[in-house]
Amino acid sequence: MSEPIAVEPVVEAARLDAADPLAPLRARFVLDDAVYLDGNSLGALPAAVPDRLAEVVRREWGELRIRSWTEAGWWTAPERIGDRIAPLVGAAPGQIVVGDSTSVNVFKALVAAIRLAGEERDEVLVDATTFPTDGYLAASAARMTGRTLRPLPPEAIAAEAGPRTAAALVNHVDYRTGRLNDLPGITAALHAAGALAVWDLCHSAGALPVGLDEHGVDLAVGCTYKYLNGGPGSPAYLYINRAVQGGFDSPLPGWNGHREPFGMRPEFAPAEGALRGRVGTPDILSMLALEAALEVWDGVGIEAVRAKSLALTDFFLRRVAAEVPAGLVESLTPAAHAERGSQVALRCADAGKVMAELIARGVIGDFREPDVLRFGFTPLYTSFTDAYTAARTLGAVLAP
Amino acid sequence: MSEPIAVEPVVEAARLDAADPLAPLRARFVLDDAVYLDGNSLGALPAAVPDRLAEVVRREWGELRIRSWTEAGWWTAPERIGDRIAPLVGAAPGQIVVGDSTSVNVFKALVAAIRLAGEERDEVLVDATTFPTDGYLAASAARMTGRTLRPLPPEAIAAEAGPRTAAALVNHVDYRTGRLNDLPGITAALHAAGALAVWDLCHSAGALPVGLDEHGVDLAVGCTYKYLNGGPGSPAYLYINRAVQGGFDSPLPGWNGHREPFGMRPEFAPAEGALRGRVGTPDILSMLALEAALEVWDGVGIEAVRAKSLALTDFFLRRVAAEVPAGLVESLTPAAHAERGSQVALRCADAGKVMAELIARGVIGDFREPDVLRFGFTPLYTSFTDAYTAARTLGAVLAP
Repeated sequence: MSEPIAVEPVVEAARLDAADPLAPLRARFVLDDAVYLDGNSLGALPAAVPDRLAEVVRREWGELRIRSWTEAGWWTAPERIGDRIAPLVGAAPGQIVVGDSTSVNVFKALVAAIRLAGEERDEVLVDATTFPTDGYLAASAARMTGRTLRPLPPEAIAAEAGPRTAAALVNHVDYRTGRLNDLPGITAALHAAGALAVWDLCHSAGALPVGLDEHGVDLAVGCTYKYLNGGPGSPAYLYINRAVQGGFDSPLPGWNGHREPFGMRPEFAPAEGALRGRVGTPDILSMLALEAALEVWDGVGIEAVRAKSLALTDFFLRRVAAEVPAGLVESLTPAAHAERGSQVALRCADAGKVMAELIARGVIGDFREPDVLRFGFTPLYTSFTDAYTAARTLGAVLAP
Repeated sequence: MSEPIAVEPVVEAARLDAADPLAPLRARFVLDDAVYLDGNSLGALPAAVPDRLAEVVRREWGELRIRSWTEAGWWTAPERIGDRIAPLVGAAPGQIVVGDSTSVNVFKALVAAIRLAGEERDEVLVDATTFPTDGYLAASAARMTGRTLRPLPPEAIAAEAGPRTAAALVNHVDYRTGRLNDLPGITAALHAAGALAVWDLCHSAGALPVGLDEHGVDLAVGCTYKYLNGGPGSPAYLYINRAVQGGFDSPLPGWNGHREPFGMRPEFAPAEGALRGRVGTPDILSMLALEAALEVWDGVGIEAVRAKSLALTDFFLRRVAAEVPAGLVESLTPAAHAERGSQVALRCADAGKVMAELIARGVIGDFREPDVLRFGFTPLYTSFTDAYTAARTLGAVLAP
């Protein structure tokens, strides 16, 4: 053994679990013996979802049918569920609507930001390390509004924003490395340059405090199927800060975002508030599954989630250093807490094969091209024993 | 009684039901004693959906979790379900992808059509009687591509299309009146003018033959929650004719439409074929509910559906004429079969109150501003006895 041992690591993990105030939340999920460290890709099934979804299907669709649009609250689900997500990302009510995919919301948010910035600002910045779809949609938004797109490393965005900058689209946590970008600092720098800040929260919401209102973020988007456990491809959300709602001019002005959706007017007149971010008919089955999934957050504070997340990733990194022979993996995830999300990314030769072997041994992470092993830590249901087992199994797979 | 009677109408309805080859299909749905004539807004629940969705939630999400993207066929659901819809709208495989809302698909289709038409064509035509969201999105598509939008009555589009016309967006069946527009004729006229034809099939797919390939339609969109019974807000679809797939340049180039979606490339490179119409992660729960719902079409030909639809609306219009005192309602739905969809719209004073009373008496249609009663006839589960009961109840409600 290469480290001084105060206590056997398996015992240390058990003690950490015993002292974990969030440990009882694991019972709110359907889990088995696997070590599931892919909640940063698809969150586990919350136990309340199956029965609630069955009720939606059999009772609300099957019996009430069309009446459910009003009587079962279907019509108002996008804003109601948005308000349920709001406290998790530090937003007051009335600023989030749920619906569409993250990609579609990126387009809405960025085009609206460009329009809010005014005609004279002809440049859009985008986090060059972002999940690719954000870059693709940013390119389309720039093309369709006649702006130039300039990809930059996220740490350069604050310094590069200037009088030509309309807006910047930045990822809060990098999907590959797990790096946490400086949302308060970059947002403040963009504002100082007169530009708008658009944040992608896919890999941060539900794992750490975001503070959208506190930091004056203008617009934000995020998915709900990672740390929010909404189910495969569950609807994304759009945050429109109250301060910019009046000027939010959507490139996708669907009838659900109309001031009078059932007036059937030939001209579009946007609804007041965040409702103008809605587009078409909400996808009710997925949306109400998400609503049931959000019940796991009852009584849970995001600060406690963050504390456990950091403790889990710290512990995992320590155990990996101890279990894996030196030089076989390299952490891409920053060591500094202020720069770390809730996942650990390890660079590793033959990462695809290594992950397949880990999965075969019951440790579920994922592989990202070309050489990255990703391990997501979902504080609501990941235990320290899970982290221990994962590191130990990785060590066994990589042992010469 | 004001009409000559060969047979009591209730007996006639029963005889028509007994002779109806589609009558057994009603057992494929969850229905009750209500006369449900709102399937043109929300289709009834197909009986196969609840168990299938429960399996998707408990087994595919709850147990297999992330593995289901490959092992349960989640990733390929948009094109697989598109191919299941294809025969219902007269399309060969490989041209339809499911996902997003109708509104979002209208934007994709119309912007792509404008780009296909080339820079010199600076005008877009839109059916002025269309469901408003199509007009709103068409206005946005025109604005963002620097074109002029010209709304026209659908019957004027063929004559008005000219060398400046890039594309026209037309509704196949008018949502309010139930009028069936001349898809073959308008499409041919647009092509003769060098323009592209984009059709909205929301109120026709699943109720009558569309013939997308036969008539050379370039692009089409439709929802799946009306005559396709996919569930509330179920995903819409996008048809991209094989002939224009190579030039289809999406304004929403999401990672799911990338040639190599897991390559995580910084530049967008569109997938081959209709796959380039995909955007973000597909909404799996809603999408697989839709897939199960489409099983009701097994062994059903759309020609038989059309024959029954016309017989139902004919019978209903006859019974309304007989049951409702003269002058109290006026049909907005064309009498000619070639101009009729699968709904009947009646103009009526106090239509909102009248519909509320009909609903209270178990006849479920809907009301559209300002004075329209809508009755949708879904040939898979609506009976002639339903049509009889609806007309009789309307007569009773309106009787002086």
